[in-house]
Amino acid sequence: MSFKISPLAPKKKVNLNKLNGINVSITHCGLKKNKKEDLVLIKFDNSSCIFSFFTKSKTPGEPIIWNKSIQKYSRVSAILINSGNANVFTGDEGKDAVKKIVDSLSKKLGIKKEEIYLASTGIIGEQLDHRKIIKKIPYLISNLSNTPLSWQRAANAIRTTDTYEKLASLKSTSDPKFILNGIAKGSGMIAPNMGTMLSFIFTDFQIQGIHYKKIISGLVERTFNSITVDGDTSTSDMVLLVSVNQNKTQKKINKKKNIEQFFQSLEDLMRNLSQQIVKDGEGASKFIQIKVSGTKNYSEAKKIAFSIANSPLFKTALSGSDLNWGRIIMAIGKANINIETNNLTLKFGNYFILKKGRYVLKSFLKVNKYIKQKEIDLSLDFGVSQASACVWTCDFTKDYISINTDYKS
Amino acid sequence: MSFKISPLAPKKKVNLNKLNGINVSITHCGLKKNKKEDLVLIKFDNSSCIFSFFTKSKTPGEPIIWNKSIQKYSRVSAILINSGNANVFTGDEGKDAVKKIVDSLSKKLGIKKEEIYLASTGIIGEQLDHRKIIKKIPYLISNLSNTPLSWQRAANAIRTTDTYEKLASLKSTSDPKFILNGIAKGSGMIAPNMGTMLSFIFTDFQIQGIHYKKIISGLVERTFNSITVDGDTSTSDMVLLVSVNQNKTQKKINKKKNIEQFFQSLEDLMRNLSQQIVKDGEGASKFIQIKVSGTKNYSEAKKIAFSIANSPLFKTALSGSDLNWGRIIMAIGKANINIETNNLTLKFGNYFILKKGRYVLKSFLKVNKYIKQKEIDLSLDFGVSQASACVWTCDFTKDYISINTDYKS
Repeated sequence: MSFKISPLAPKKKVNLNKLNGINVSITHCGLKKNKKEDLVLIKFDNSSCIFSFFTKSKTPGEPIIWNKSIQKYSRVSAILINSGNANVFTGDEGKDAVKKIVDSLSKKLGIKKEEIYLASTGIIGEQLDHRKIIKKIPYLISNLSNTPLSWQRAANAIRTTDTYEKLASLKSTSDPKFILNGIAKGSGMIAPNMGTMLSFIFTDFQIQGIHYKKIISGLVERTFNSITVDGDTSTSDMVLLVSVNQNKTQKKINKKKNIEQFFQSLEDLMRNLSQQIVKDGEGASKFIQIKVSGTKNYSEAKKIAFSIANSPLFKTALSGSDLNWGRIIMAIGKANINIETNNLTLKFGNYFILKKGRYVLKSFLKVNKYIKQKEIDLSLDFGVSQASACVWTCDFTKDYISINTDYKS
Repeated sequence: MSFKISPLAPKKKVNLNKLNGINVSITHCGLKKNKKEDLVLIKFDNSSCIFSFFTKSKTPGEPIIWNKSIQKYSRVSAILINSGNANVFTGDEGKDAVKKIVDSLSKKLGIKKEEIYLASTGIIGEQLDHRKIIKKIPYLISNLSNTPLSWQRAANAIRTTDTYEKLASLKSTSDPKFILNGIAKGSGMIAPNMGTMLSFIFTDFQIQGIHYKKIISGLVERTFNSITVDGDTSTSDMVLLVSVNQNKTQKKINKKKNIEQFFQSLEDLMRNLSQQIVKDGEGASKFIQIKVSGTKNYSEAKKIAFSIANSPLFKTALSGSDLNWGRIIMAIGKANINIETNNLTLKFGNYFILKKGRYVLKSFLKVNKYIKQKEIDLSLDFGVSQASACVWTCDFTKDYISINTDYKS
């Protein structure tokens, strides 16, 4: 089964900038059908600093459980990713599969077990055949490379129902000089597969030390954790950021200003990848940005924005290009935030619907034309404070239902 | 625009049993198009005891705000219901409309203002033209009656996009003798209307006193608050239960056993009406009962059940008659409850998929045949305690998307 490429896909292929100290290899091991590539090994020349973020699901997959157990060491030497099976709800056998894969990789690469991260995406509840993976490890090790094409192939191999590969790259050529590369897979979901958000980001900028974790966690919160396709949360979501150690003796003290610039770029790259994921949401025909401001704090703004972004009634209204702002009022109400709507200002693009609680729409035709577009901005301001949050989502179409009902597991 | 009647609609029309002390009249006042009936007055011969329950939305409609302000008196002499306009997000003008309608009814019927309940359902954000309603009050008062047909018409007039009227009636002929009658409208939703759950229940059983409120609230929790169509919460939901005072001097002391029997019947009637609402969910082709047991307490069981019931991935899987139990595991995980799944037992009808955490499905064909049916039972048991909760929902179909996108406001 294959789907047409999302109408929101980027027009041009993205090539990653060359980043030293990291290599990748790709193969098929039989977890996906038809010899599709489904296994990716990422190997670092030197043990590197890693920042890791995982799903909040209470039924996480075995790779998540493993990664969390080594998270405290904050070091990585290799990442192994497979698609086709999520290794979730697989009990002791699933744990054993993880152990065997890690043992084998550790031995063959001569690296510490606690520096091996795993990611799996695909079917839930079926045993992961670790032999298929282990058999391919020697091949993967002897085929490591670092070309733009190999990264394209890697981004392709981690897909499940994504209709295109997701890559992003940023290069800062003036001081501070750095490269930021990222690949991701999106939350396309299909029976019997469970869509999962995975993202792997690499940089040569040296950010050692866990005191940066809080800042980076904030960036993840404002990017990867600010998107939604259907409100369903995967058991296997993860974001890994690796500050690649290109020289064993490398130690760099960063100026505060440089760090700030780097984090700004990191947020840009994360936002770019997050938005690519939403644009490949199942059946998506529209990309919608929802900005909520003027609430008591960020958390309230985000809750209201997500309540709108996850409302099937709001998403179907936009899919039909229908200005149905009553559904936005409903979604504010169900967010369970104590907030006055007397002062609410609401606009689509630059077209005001409400100004300080009063209905002010002048040209119904113009705003209707605006919401027919492929990219839509919705802003709400409650006028209480300066706090704001932005989330991104897509519309809800018949294709979403087709993708998720017509296919049989 | 009209929709075909839900395939889950009851086969036979329900007629209410005759209950004295209450009358109803129905008319059209122009809030709905094409002279459709849209206004209902329910009048009690004597001031009666009322128990009232309202939406948890933080953007409630003006009728909800009014009803809450008189809730403390717990008495009712009349209920006025309109469809076609919800009187939500209408500011001071909306409040004024409520005031004028209540004033007029109070004067014309010679009843206290604080004994008048209002309910409105329909478009959000448009002013309610109270003159249309007030003009019809004399007609309504002079046309009160108490026939089965008039209750059929009332149940019809409060519909928005419901595809059938919802009525239920129970009569206990042995001791304690009582009649329980109820009408409801469902959560069909359509642009620009906002579906709302309304239910009005009347009985001759004498349950005076607010000490019963907690028990009845529990019944509402296990019935009307245990259903979901799309997880969206209306601004206007309400359930009113009136213990009709048939004789001004009537005072009855109930035996404990009789009260228990009455509450059992009340729960049955409430469950019946709730399930009728779900069966008329937009685009519904299947009725699904989800029972979760063995969690620490009722609240955890209900959260997990709702997480499954509101998952678009679960609902689309069932719409496609696909046994995709991985999506159930995902939905458990996102319910944000700390619970072990090692002991999880999961079955569809009598077909076990998991027993104490182990996959035990024997006949894929049989269970697949089972989930092709129109009514499906899903049970999950976590084996921790005796707590349990049951929720009812429907599947998610292309018709849901059509209903909510193709129509233009």
